[in-house]
Amino acid sequence: MKVVSTINQVRDIISQWKKEGLSVGLVPTMGYLHEGHGSLIEAAHKNNDKVVVSVFVNPIQFGPTEDLDKYPRDLERDSKIVEDFGGDLIFTPTPSEMYVEDFASFVEVSSLTEGLCGAKRPGHFRGVCTVVTKLFNIVTPDKAYFGEKDAQQLAVIKKMVRDLNVPVEIVGCPIIRESDGLAKSSRNVYLSTEERASALILSKSLAKAKEALNNGERSSESLRQLIIDTLSSEPLAKVDYVEIVDSLSLKPVINIEKDILIALAVYIGKTRLIDNFTYKLC
Amino acid sequence: MKVVSTINQVRDIISQWKKEGLSVGLVPTMGYLHEGHGSLIEAAHKNNDKVVVSVFVNPIQFGPTEDLDKYPRDLERDSKIVEDFGGDLIFTPTPSEMYVEDFASFVEVSSLTEGLCGAKRPGHFRGVCTVVTKLFNIVTPDKAYFGEKDAQQLAVIKKMVRDLNVPVEIVGCPIIRESDGLAKSSRNVYLSTEERASALILSKSLAKAKEALNNGERSSESLRQLIIDTLSSEPLAKVDYVEIVDSLSLKPVINIEKDILIALAVYIGKTRLIDNFTYKLC
Repeated sequence: MKVVSTINQVRDIISQWKKEGLSVGLVPTMGYLHEGHGSLIEAAHKNNDKVVVSVFVNPIQFGPTEDLDKYPRDLERDSKIVEDFGGDLIFTPTPSEMYVEDFASFVEVSSLTEGLCGAKRPGHFRGVCTVVTKLFNIVTPDKAYFGEKDAQQLAVIKKMVRDLNVPVEIVGCPIIRESDGLAKSSRNVYLSTEERASALILSKSLAKAKEALNNGERSSESLRQLIIDTLSSEPLAKVDYVEIVDSLSLKPVINIEKDILIALAVYIGKTRLIDNFTYKLC
Repeated sequence: MKVVSTINQVRDIISQWKKEGLSVGLVPTMGYLHEGHGSLIEAAHKNNDKVVVSVFVNPIQFGPTEDLDKYPRDLERDSKIVEDFGGDLIFTPTPSEMYVEDFASFVEVSSLTEGLCGAKRPGHFRGVCTVVTKLFNIVTPDKAYFGEKDAQQLAVIKKMVRDLNVPVEIVGCPIIRESDGLAKSSRNVYLSTEERASALILSKSLAKAKEALNNGERSSESLRQLIIDTLSSEPLAKVDYVEIVDSLSLKPVINIEKDILIALAVYIGKTRLIDNFTYKLC
């Protein structure tokens, strides 16, 4: 397993692989890897000859008041995880390697980004689409792997790839959870012991919603209220958003008649966590 | 020489070429080809094993009051020109092949696009960058060829390619002119006989500016006034803009101390024509 930090280095290695006819899978990450990322690396390893994992905390997808500076970083730990799960190459550029001083080109998806995290984090998906486009252009992978935990991100990237004819197959992989149900996230490291216990309320509230759906609940507003009430029962939790949207268009639904995505973002103390699930009716 | 209209067809052909180890040059055009395009095809033919010419009048780079509907189209004539100049494949998609109904992804360069044509045609370069990105993703060329007549377009595309790490080499080719000096353009076909004679004022005014520069003129405002006065001597001409900008940043200059681009857009009757030249001081 190799670690490189310049665009030229990664291009040289990949060009050699391509000459040998090898397929390449890419797992774009911001590092501080956990078993969620591991599952992506594993899936990439299974279906490609070589796996590149990018580790880059992308400044342009963070808002001015967000956690760019304190976002956890540990390349040594990440290297071990990439190796364990079958990755072949880590690409870990510096911000200045990725963004020249007068950088001014952006990729934007104007639908799918209005609600959910897009509404709460203006410019976030523009930053994501731009860095993913750059990584695709640098690595030129056959397939790229993204977690379903960032459901809106996955939908936006799929749309970008389709709209712009990007020659990369996008593969979504299921949310990986701790044994008690908390969705794995690099940001879980921010949580104190007390907050870690409170954070369970995210998956619990989704479980309640699923139960209600299974019992025939079809009003999005009642369902949303149920989730909010459950979240509010936890004193450390502060709801950022709870949305029930069409799983394809990500537009809010009133009556639940098709597949829906229930997505939520909740502050536990100062830490913003997200979780979601897709309920299939069709 | 082959003509195809679907993305799958062009991908199949190019994937076969790539398997054979052949290099691919792309000449993106809006059709109604002239010797300016011919020079791009020729340059591509010289430096690549295969040459793809796209012929697509890109709706999203036209403003609501612009000439999208009447833009001239003649695929039979274009095919002959592509063949004559050494092209191997024409890709001529329909608008619906390029833009799905809920199309919503765009590529934007936020610097270089404020002045010149960018100021006069809002959204134009977003449309250009988006379609060029799509064509690059579909054709995956090694090199792509653009005319220096659209000087701002060439600068914007070079910037996009550098910022987003697009793995395509951009080659600019000199303006091709009629024997009397008029820059070749598909839009020249709109001109009546009288307008055709008046249109000479564009290249004439640039020639006057060049002469003044050779004689030591270094004030951008005096130079600009000289050009405007020359253009105004022609009753059918209506100035859209005359700008003297740094040839790299495209920012207006006051004193001429570095390489400059003099660019102008002029209405001759209802037809908007552009011309430019770069004056090298360094």
